[in-house]
Amino acid sequence: MRLRLTPREDGFYGLFADSANNLVTGARLLVELISEGADREAIAEKMRACEHAGDECTHAIMHRLNESFITPFDREDIYDLASQLDDVMDYMEEAADLVVLYKIQRLPKDVLRQVEVLERAAELTAEAMPRLKTLRELNAFWIEINRLENQADQIYRKLLAHLFSGEYEPLEVMKLKEVIDRLEDAADAFEHVANTVETIAVKES
Amino acid sequence: MRLRLTPREDGFYGLFADSANNLVTGARLLVELISEGADREAIAEKMRACEHAGDECTHAIMHRLNESFITPFDREDIYDLASQLDDVMDYMEEAADLVVLYKIQRLPKDVLRQVEVLERAAELTAEAMPRLKTLRELNAFWIEINRLENQADQIYRKLLAHLFSGEYEPLEVMKLKEVIDRLEDAADAFEHVANTVETIAVKES
Amino acid sequence: MRLRLTPREDGFYGLFADSANNLVTGARLLVELISEGADREAIAEKMRACEHAGDECTHAIMHRLNESFITPFDREDIYDLASQLDDVMDYMEEAADLVVLYKIQRLPKDVLRQVEVLERAAELTAEAMPRLKTLRELNAFWIEINRLENQADQIYRKLLAHLFSGEYEPLEVMKLKEVIDRLEDAADAFEHVANTVETIAVKES
Repeated sequence: MRLRLTPREDGFYGLFADSANNLVTGARLLVELISEGADREAIAEKMRACEHAGDECTHAIMHRLNESFITPFDREDIYDLASQLDDVMDYMEEAADLVVLYKIQRLPKDVLRQVEVLERAAELTAEAMPRLKTLRELNAFWIEINRLENQADQIYRKLLAHLFSGEYEPLEVMKLKEVIDRLEDAADAFEHVANTVETIAVKES
Repeated sequence: MRLRLTPREDGFYGLFADSANNLVTGARLLVELISEGADREAIAEKMRACEHAGDECTHAIMHRLNESFITPFDREDIYDLASQLDDVMDYMEEAADLVVLYKIQRLPKDVLRQVEVLERAAELTAEAMPRLKTLRELNAFWIEINRLENQADQIYRKLLAHLFSGEYEPLEVMKLKEVIDRLEDAADAFEHVANTVETIAVKES
Repeated sequence: MRLRLTPREDGFYGLFADSANNLVTGARLLVELISEGADREAIAEKMRACEHAGDECTHAIMHRLNESFITPFDREDIYDLASQLDDVMDYMEEAADLVVLYKIQRLPKDVLRQVEVLERAAELTAEAMPRLKTLRELNAFWIEINRLENQADQIYRKLLAHLFSGEYEPLEVMKLKEVIDRLEDAADAFEHVANTVETIAVKES
């Protein structure tokens, strides 16, 4: 039996904010990682810890969801939002890990632009999560994340054209492409987060 | 509050038909794109417009779904069907864009067969959408799309074997494989559309 | 109309067990396939038959789900569990098919370790399915599958580093990576199965 004494769980808002703040930490670690002279192994290690913290947060949301009889918005939307925030972290951690695993020496310059977009998207998401409680200005969040995702897409496609320009060896292209793909996956995952926030906002308004 | 005066929304059928008709346009643009002597940049541009029209249609369905209190079939099935039609378009547009972006000169001959299967699947889907209203002959649609998907799979696997036969340079293999993968993704996405239509048909019958 | 005389469907447990047992068969075929001197074409053929049997089982679950008015646990969880078991099979079959299609001569030694993890995960899943009826010891299953998935991840990342070490030609790297990626996808899919089982266990307890 699913039963709780308190009918509405404010705890969800706090957990979503934690999860999004963790993404800000992760995105900043990515910026560090690709800076010149960075101790990449040390940063990838911090990234793993960050991903682990995110997992615990996701698990806490899922646990609360399964135990709550009444939830502040549709169960499925809570599940989706938690999973999608978790996806962003997973992709960022994987990108960092691949840079170390593949011993990549030189990253194309525009990878920094990819990562900066992720950092901005993470900050906006962390600011938006507490607003789920009042449902204010969520549409502005959705519009801005969509704009950033379009920008990420432009950067990504330019990077692909650059990768295949003949400047890199085939094996190098393969390695770099995987890092760049994971960063693009992270940008897409932010768009899924924003779509779910928009769905919640429309339903509840 | 979700409230509407009209209890059942016929508008969904029309929007699904629009979305599927848009896929027919997209598939025909793909056939054009891979024809010899085609103005690829111009066609990729049309493809982007087509994808944009699809996005608006998907958005209209989601908006109506969020605002409708009563829907002609399960909300989740409406959401899935809209998303899956949108996925087909996204994959087709991405394939077209990659052909231009990678400046691919020569496409393997069997890519035309891939695209023709997509065109046929799009036509069948456009014909099936209005039948959601009467729920007639939807099983025939499901069977035929599954047959086409199997055919697409055969063509795809043969193309992969051809790509890796040693005829192409590694970088060329990578570029071609991505185009071919996106077209295969589009064929798979049609199967998801058909599965959702089948689910709706079984539930409502 | 969805109507049945029997209010609860025990048949689901049996069908889930069939689906999981089929995964054990599939994983053992993979072990055979990568053994030295194996008749790969013959084994890939058996794998296709195995995947076909899995499809029929999935279809039977979906059919029963659509026709049942009352189900032993949430409809969505039944749908997810069936789909996720099916995904495991699809990835295993695809891996086997690619080995034959790409005429791969030499597979890295650690691919055997990847496949052995899949075999163990399949056995555990087959043992866990009948326990859905009593909801006993499902948490132990979830923990063990998560442990196996972490192990698979370690093996996978070590394999990637090995692939890109310079020992293989670019085209060979591409072919091997796809086989290894599909096996990793299968390990991830087992984790999704375990997560759904955990969700069911928490809700029903």
